Amino acid sequence: MRALGVAIVGAGYWGPNLARNFGGSADWDLRWVCDLDLDRASGIAARNPGTRVTASLDDVLDDDAVDAVAIATPPSTHGGIGLAAIDAGKHVLVEKPLAASVAEGEKLVRAAGRQDLVLMCDHTYCYTPAVQKIRELTNSGELGDIHYVDSVRINLGLVQHDVDVMWDLAPHDISILDFVLPEGVEPVSVAAHGADPIGAGVACVAYLTMPLSNGGIAHVHVNWLSPNKQRATIIGGSRRMLVWNDLDPAQRISMFDKGIELDDAAAGETRRQRLISYRVGDMIAPALPEYEALGAMVTELAGAIREKRASRTDGEAGLRVLRLLEAASASMAGGGILMPISRLA
Amino acid sequence: MRALGVAIVGAGYWGPNLARNFGGSADWDLRWVCDLDLDRASGIAARNPGTRVTASLDDVLDDDAVDAVAIATPPSTHGGIGLAAIDAGKHVLVEKPLAASVAEGEKLVRAAGRQDLVLMCDHTYCYTPAVQKIRELTNSGELGDIHYVDSVRINLGLVQHDVDVMWDLAPHDISILDFVLPEGVEPVSVAAHGADPIGAGVACVAYLTMPLSNGGIAHVHVNWLSPNKQRATIIGGSRRMLVWNDLDPAQRISMFDKGIELDDAAAGETRRQRLISYRVGDMIAPALPEYEALGAMVTELAGAIREKRASRTDGEAGLRVLRLLEAASASMAGGGILMPISRLA
Amino acid sequence: MRALGVAIVGAGYWGPNLARNFGGSADWDLRWVCDLDLDRASGIAARNPGTRVTASLDDVLDDDAVDAVAIATPPSTHGGIGLAAIDAGKHVLVEKPLAASVAEGEKLVRAAGRQDLVLMCDHTYCYTPAVQKIRELTNSGELGDIHYVDSVRINLGLVQHDVDVMWDLAPHDISILDFVLPEGVEPVSVAAHGADPIGAGVACVAYLTMPLSNGGIAHVHVNWLSPNKQRATIIGGSRRMLVWNDLDPAQRISMFDKGIELDDAAAGETRRQRLISYRVGDMIAPALPEYEALGAMVTELAGAIREKRASRTDGEAGLRVLRLLEAASASMAGGGILMPISRLA
Amino acid sequence: MRALGVAIVGAGYWGPNLARNFGGSADWDLRWVCDLDLDRASGIAARNPGTRVTASLDDVLDDDAVDAVAIATPPSTHGGIGLAAIDAGKHVLVEKPLAASVAEGEKLVRAAGRQDLVLMCDHTYCYTPAVQKIRELTNSGELGDIHYVDSVRINLGLVQHDVDVMWDLAPHDISILDFVLPEGVEPVSVAAHGADPIGAGVACVAYLTMPLSNGGIAHVHVNWLSPNKQRATIIGGSRRMLVWNDLDPAQRISMFDKGIELDDAAAGETRRQRLISYRVGDMIAPALPEYEALGAMVTELAGAIREKRASRTDGEAGLRVLRLLEAASASMAGGGILMPISRLA
Repeated sequence: MRALGVAIVGAGYWGPNLARNFGGSADWDLRWVCDLDLDRASGIAARNPGTRVTASLDDVLDDDAVDAVAIATPPSTHGGIGLAAIDAGKHVLVEKPLAASVAEGEKLVRAAGRQDLVLMCDHTYCYTPAVQKIRELTNSGELGDIHYVDSVRINLGLVQHDVDVMWDLAPHDISILDFVLPEGVEPVSVAAHGADPIGAGVACVAYLTMPLSNGGIAHVHVNWLSPNKQRATIIGGSRRMLVWNDLDPAQRISMFDKGIELDDAAAGETRRQRLISYRVGDMIAPALPEYEALGAMVTELAGAIREKRASRTDGEAGLRVLRLLEAASASMAGGGILMPISRLA
Repeated sequence: MRALGVAIVGAGYWGPNLARNFGGSADWDLRWVCDLDLDRASGIAARNPGTRVTASLDDVLDDDAVDAVAIATPPSTHGGIGLAAIDAGKHVLVEKPLAASVAEGEKLVRAAGRQDLVLMCDHTYCYTPAVQKIRELTNSGELGDIHYVDSVRINLGLVQHDVDVMWDLAPHDISILDFVLPEGVEPVSVAAHGADPIGAGVACVAYLTMPLSNGGIAHVHVNWLSPNKQRATIIGGSRRMLVWNDLDPAQRISMFDKGIELDDAAAGETRRQRLISYRVGDMIAPALPEYEALGAMVTELAGAIREKRASRTDGEAGLRVLRLLEAASASMAGGGILMPISRLA
Repeated sequence: MRALGVAIVGAGYWGPNLARNFGGSADWDLRWVCDLDLDRASGIAARNPGTRVTASLDDVLDDDAVDAVAIATPPSTHGGIGLAAIDAGKHVLVEKPLAASVAEGEKLVRAAGRQDLVLMCDHTYCYTPAVQKIRELTNSGELGDIHYVDSVRINLGLVQHDVDVMWDLAPHDISILDFVLPEGVEPVSVAAHGADPIGAGVACVAYLTMPLSNGGIAHVHVNWLSPNKQRATIIGGSRRMLVWNDLDPAQRISMFDKGIELDDAAAGETRRQRLISYRVGDMIAPALPEYEALGAMVTELAGAIREKRASRTDGEAGLRVLRLLEAASASMAGGGILMPISRLA
Repeated sequence: MRALGVAIVGAGYWGPNLARNFGGSADWDLRWVCDLDLDRASGIAARNPGTRVTASLDDVLDDDAVDAVAIATPPSTHGGIGLAAIDAGKHVLVEKPLAASVAEGEKLVRAAGRQDLVLMCDHTYCYTPAVQKIRELTNSGELGDIHYVDSVRINLGLVQHDVDVMWDLAPHDISILDFVLPEGVEPVSVAAHGADPIGAGVACVAYLTMPLSNGGIAHVHVNWLSPNKQRATIIGGSRRMLVWNDLDPAQRISMFDKGIELDDAAAGETRRQRLISYRVGDMIAPALPEYEALGAMVTELAGAIREKRASRTDGEAGLRVLRLLEAASASMAGGGILMPISRLA
């Protein structure tokens, strides 16, 4: 099976990681690294014999052996480069966020759709062994109905000026939420609150609350000002409950056979009298395989192209994350008012 | 110094704890246990030789040797019994919540004020060694300006039907918040979101967000459906940051000499260029004394009466907690709309 | 089924706990509390209506309604009181240690044996839900062959003068070891080392090493001078491995599906070439029931008497613990020389 | 200040790490990588422009610009290569163990001494920020007299056939112990016990007990068969106690202001009556700098050479570790008999 040709556009922060994984994959032939800064591009290409460098996107798009273009440029340019690549008949992988706005993102999705091309968003976290396992558990019904998802991602973090803590960290939590929620369960609205107690000019602490379509609730706490680092998610289900502590390599996932049951037989009676019972069984920490998430991501991209299917984190997924973040920003600007999340398109 | 006379009204769940501590204190002479159920009353009184029982509140109020009345009856009765006691010239201790409504609570506060009587609310948590220490640290300026307070109180808890998780658990967090925030810093509004994914008839998961008057933010997560128990509060300050993990007896409080500083000299320049620096110093886990919170509480009541001063958790404090909870309930009913917290009275 | 009559001899530190559990058990009728200090005895008896007090052991032994005598007096008296009770035809429960010496302990065991009476040693720890579960796992073969048992019991503990840290703490670990090791696996010798760095006059830090009859090894670390409290035991098995952390109520037992396998097919070849493989599967933290260990102990005593069988912690077990401790003391005195543990009797 | 010339002999497992750190240091000019396998040598040298490769030790020793030789070959060759380098007037860094035997190690130490050359052993762990801090605390008297050192280094580890778990893991603990014990405190003897429950042909579990010259005690537990990884050391001192948990990056060192005091005034009386008091103060987790241990090690080597002084982990230190391990092996072979540690030479 011949390797697929890929070109990386953008040799900045993320480019080298993409190059290492495309370069090291049997599925892929890394043909080009494209960047206006040729030195940067060469620095990356050097490690992959046979990879050429160019400052011109046309060189990449004119190369028939290039099946896919991986875009790792600043968000504002995702739309333009992505559309050009699609017009040239290339499959496209885009760094998150999918685009600078929902409107632009929708253009990409429609364009790729018209031409039956794969449009994939690099939500790297979704390809970690832990999140893959969680998706498996939530989608197999192992957890039952999802009651709530509570996600905390806090640290004494790198305060930034051009983006607030919500746009910096919450995309991880939201893309993971989108990835693990079972079919038919989704956030219907979002309320967001932020604070900038240090005068950084952007929110350094933020809370997002997302009512779910099944009556459950999702919540995200992101914080640049925390003395201790936390990366923990709790998922409450009707059959089981799960805790994912990404900072505990020895026990990342703990699945509890715990629950609360309301006696349905007594459902007719007034609630005050309904019987409540608690179930407390064993806890299981499933063994997780060890592999690099980014490697699994490039493999998924190749699979989607070859099998002519949508990837697990396709343009629609990237779009859903964008829609939620835009609604959250509007909510935060509006004092935390609950903003519906448009399901159109 | 003669012991003060006290009567306990209400021999239910909390009464025995009050009796044990009033009975064991040199400051107090437990004269009466008053309950319509005389057996219950006797059960408690028995352990305190010399303590009489009665089903009539008048017996208690007519006893000139009774200086204070401790009310441990259902909330709906706090107002009536409290006012009667105040009219009879007794100091009053009330179980939380102070009253069934803000209006009723305000009546109590005004009545006690008119007669220069001590009105105290039993916010027991505030008298734990850990919270006393935290108050000391926040009020001494040890932490600097308070940037945020994040409180998590979750468990596979006893689902109730007559009260939601917010009224069941958040009073602890809110009374603690009220207790530790330094003079002049207070919640100005509250947004609350809840969910009842199991159909219990009341919210089983709730999130409260409270913008603070100094530009900071406070947040509370209470949850009856969590597989693991958490009782943790993070307080971020400009000089130091603090983590209180009430479930770790070996290290309840961790104070971090950590922070983020923005170069003020560069304040004139555009934010993008402002210099940010991080400070990471030692962490200190202060040794805490060991004593029972309820014992410290009855001592504080005696002190307030003898020194003719407000107690550390006086009627005003109970009122502030009530106001915040009422506003939070209104917010939850209104889809999380930000409700201002009236500062009147 | 009529309740069995029991008398408690010794109203000191442990007596009240025995009284609470015998008094609260339907299996038992607590008839006497016997102590030279009648006030002490009365203090305990008071809580159990119908229980009489006496300073004379004869009153107890002459009472035909007394089926069993529970001895909670100082170790030096266990032998004498125990033999008297056995001569009077009473079943006997003895606080650990069984007796002041192996010789004395053997007398008790022989005497009880001759008269078909139950002689039980109160190894309370063995009746905790955690240790009961561990025994179940080791004896069912769930763990496979036992490779090693490593036990740590350290704390900033109460330094004593009449007994060293080994006799103070290690009896717990040794009685547990004796309780959970499967049939046919036992310590064959012991080497003990101690140190008294603070000049307390007795060892404050001690290490016991015990080669096992199956080629495995057991080890105990007891320490009065540790800044942090640890109560942890690791049991390595050929099929599974187990960690018991008694200080983590949320996850006391963790059973790991982990192991190392040597390729037996290659057994003929030189070891250097033998294939080693590692197995890493799920971890399971079994749910444990909640009950008081001492309550389970008095129930077991009743069961042993009624079913005319040895109790789970019978005189022989108490004797094995004594033999090991005596050998360990001899080893420590001899500079850690490996002392065989006599299997006679 | 001109860079010192260094040659790495041995391009196996550890060679690349040495090359990276010597190559990246301003103190050093990495002139040669010497290995019989020239490809391996070239692979390493490639990353350091100007570094030559050779299969002949003579090329290295004949190069007057080579000030020091870093030996990363198998232990059996350390003696020969080391002596040759010293004869050629080169300073020498040797991977641990210093040599294959104490006798050989002593030859190296004497030879280097005669020629005033630096002989250093690469005890990398001693150059980590945590161990440097611990040495500072033990040597400054911050901890007071050292009462005990308890070290645990266990894991589901790579079982080896040519070396037992003691020689595989304990050199870390012993070199750290040697590094942090204050002047005049040292192990005077060692008792070692091991077990091979899986039939690997070598001990897979081992315990070392080491009485200290000041009446204290040190103990090491190394284990290849543990389900959970532990790297923890407790150091008990008369003024303070310290816990080093190398697996907790957020709190590697915890220093406790805890202790036990015997009333010396009462020293004359019988011990039974001596007063014991407990001190429990704050816990401090000192902030640690972040740097690579191996980088600090090559800097120390340069410093020792330039300042004509012994390095912090000199040949004598390597020799002390060898002596202790040889005595421990003899003890294990002798059933755990206490072996004195020769202080000669």
